[in-house]
Amino acid sequence: MRIAVVGAGALGLYYGALLQRAGNDVRFLLRRDFEAVRDRGLTVHSINGDFHLRDVRGYRSAVEIGMVDLVLVGLKTFANHLLGEFIAPLLSAETRILTLQNGIGNEEALASRFGAERVLGGVAFLCCNRGEPGVVHHLGAGRIVLGEFREHDPARAEELAASFRSAGVECQVVRDLKRARWEKLVWNIPFNGICALTGQPVDILLGHDGCRSLVHDIMIEVIRAGNAQGLREDIPESFAGQMISFTEPMGPYRPSMLIDREEGRLLELDAILAKPLAAGREQGIDMPKTAMLLALLETAVENG
Amino acid sequence: MRIAVVGAGALGLYYGALLQRAGNDVRFLLRRDFEAVRDRGLTVHSINGDFHLRDVRGYRSAVEIGMVDLVLVGLKTFANHLLGEFIAPLLSAETRILTLQNGIGNEEALASRFGAERVLGGVAFLCCNRGEPGVVHHLGAGRIVLGEFREHDPARAEELAASFRSAGVECQVVRDLKRARWEKLVWNIPFNGICALTGQPVDILLGHDGCRSLVHDIMIEVIRAGNAQGLREDIPESFAGQMISFTEPMGPYRPSMLIDREEGRLLELDAILAKPLAAGREQGIDMPKTAMLLALLETAVENG
Repeated sequence: MRIAVVGAGALGLYYGALLQRAGNDVRFLLRRDFEAVRDRGLTVHSINGDFHLRDVRGYRSAVEIGMVDLVLVGLKTFANHLLGEFIAPLLSAETRILTLQNGIGNEEALASRFGAERVLGGVAFLCCNRGEPGVVHHLGAGRIVLGEFREHDPARAEELAASFRSAGVECQVVRDLKRARWEKLVWNIPFNGICALTGQPVDILLGHDGCRSLVHDIMIEVIRAGNAQGLREDIPESFAGQMISFTEPMGPYRPSMLIDREEGRLLELDAILAKPLAAGREQGIDMPKTAMLLALLETAVENG
Repeated sequence: MRIAVVGAGALGLYYGALLQRAGNDVRFLLRRDFEAVRDRGLTVHSINGDFHLRDVRGYRSAVEIGMVDLVLVGLKTFANHLLGEFIAPLLSAETRILTLQNGIGNEEALASRFGAERVLGGVAFLCCNRGEPGVVHHLGAGRIVLGEFREHDPARAEELAASFRSAGVECQVVRDLKRARWEKLVWNIPFNGICALTGQPVDILLGHDGCRSLVHDIMIEVIRAGNAQGLREDIPESFAGQMISFTEPMGPYRPSMLIDREEGRLLELDAILAKPLAAGREQGIDMPKTAMLLALLETAVENG
C-alpha cells in the first residue's frame, strides 16, 4: 500500500516507520526532519525494540509525493487550515484519509473538504515524543481504535486495521467512532487541561482531594456532553471512576499538552476543549467546569 | 506613640517608616533586613517622594522591643502560627493590635490569643514591594480602611486613624470591618487567584471574554458569601461590575500573589481563598468557581 504521512510529528513518524518496516511504500511530508531523514534515515527508540530505517522517502511538498492509497494525518489540529494544501495533491478517486489527530472536529474538517466517504478516524493511545531530527522515542502503548466517519463499506476499516496489525500495531475497529473520540476526551480534557494549566503531572492532580474531585466532575461533564451527541450506546458515568483508576498507576506521567506548554508550543485547545464544549452547549449540556478550565488555559497562554 | 511592627515586609516597613517620620517611636521586628537597616537605615522610594530614615530601631526579637502602645501586624498569614511568640512580649494591658494582613481570619486568630478587646483590623489598599534589604518601593495607593474587631470604644479607631493621617496615610474608619474585609476579597480572590494561576497581569484577564466573565462570576460568589456572614448592610451585586471598572485602568498590574508565585514564595491561599470559601459553605453558599480556583492553585504549588 502506498501511504502518505501528513503531519510527521512523533505520532506520524512512529506509525509511518512501522508501516514502512512492514513493507508499505510510505512517503513522509517533512519539514523539520527533512535533511536529517534524507541524510541518516529514521530511528525509532521503542520499548518494543529499537530499529532504524536507512532509506526513507521524505518530501518537502505533497505535489512531489503524488497520489497514494492512504493519507495518514497526524498534523497538530491548530494547523488544520493547511490540510487543503497538504492533502489535495495526494488524492485519487480511491484514496482514503485516516486522521489520528486529537480531539473532535477533524473528520468533519476533512469530510467537508475532500468528501465524507473517504474519511476514517482513529484514536491513538500512544506515548511518543520526537527526539533530535530523524529520531522518535516511543515510550509506551500504541493501540489504535479506528472507525468510519460515515458508515460505508464495513470491510474497509477492517482492511486498514489489518495493515496496522501486520505492522505490529494493536488495532481495533469500532462501529461508533464518535463514542471512541468522546471516551478519549473524558481523559484528555481534565488531564491534559489541568496538567498544562498547573504544570503538574497526573499523580499530583490525583493526590490533591479537591483536584481529584475536579477531575471527576469534569469527566462527568464530558460524558454527559458526549452522550448528548447521539452515540449508539451511552458512555456510563461510572466510566469517570474507571478512567481515574486507569490513571493511578501512571505515576508522574506528563500528558502531551503539558509537554507542549513547557516547550513553548501551541496547545490544541480548540480540538480538545473548545469544540467539545461547543458541541455540549449545542445540545444544551452545561459544562461550567470545562468552560472555566478552557478560559484559564486560554488566559494562561495569551501573549499579551 | 510607641509602635511595634511585626511582619516587616513591604507593607510593615512602608507604614512603619511613615509613622516614624511623623514622630512616633517605631520599633521593627526584623529578620531579612536587620543588618541593612542597622547599618544604613531605611529607604522608601515612593511615588509621593523618596525619603530615608537614618536611625531606625530594628530588633531581632520581640522581647528586646518590650511593651508598646500599638502592634502593627503585617505578617504574611501563612506565618500566623508565629504570632504568639512575636506579639506576647509586646503587650501591656493597654496595648492595641492592628492587623493589616490579607484575607480573613486574622482578627479572630489575634482575638482568641490576646483578647478581642485589643484587636482592630484594617484593609490596606497599597501597592508596595520590597527592594534590596533596607529598601521599600511604594508604587501606588496606600489608603487604609480600619475598624474595631468587636464594638468597643468608638473613639479608639478614630484616634488610630488620626495617627495614620498625620503620617500622611489616607485612613477611613468603618463600623463594619467585616464588610470591608469581604469587599477587599471581592477583588482579591479572582484577581490574585487567577493572575497567580495563569501567570498573567490583570489586563490579560479582562481582555479575554471568558476569563472576564469568570472574574465576574467569582466576584458574585464572594459577594453572596460575604452577605451571608451577617454584614450591617449587604454588598450589592453591582459591586462586581464596579470592581472590574476600577481594575480596567490598572493596565498590566501584577497582584501580590502573582509576584509571590514568580519569586517562589508561599502563597496566602488559606487567608485569601480557603477561609472565605469555608465561611461561605458554613452559611450554605455554594462557591463552585472559587472552589475550583483554589483546587487548581493548591495543585499548581504542590511540590510533589
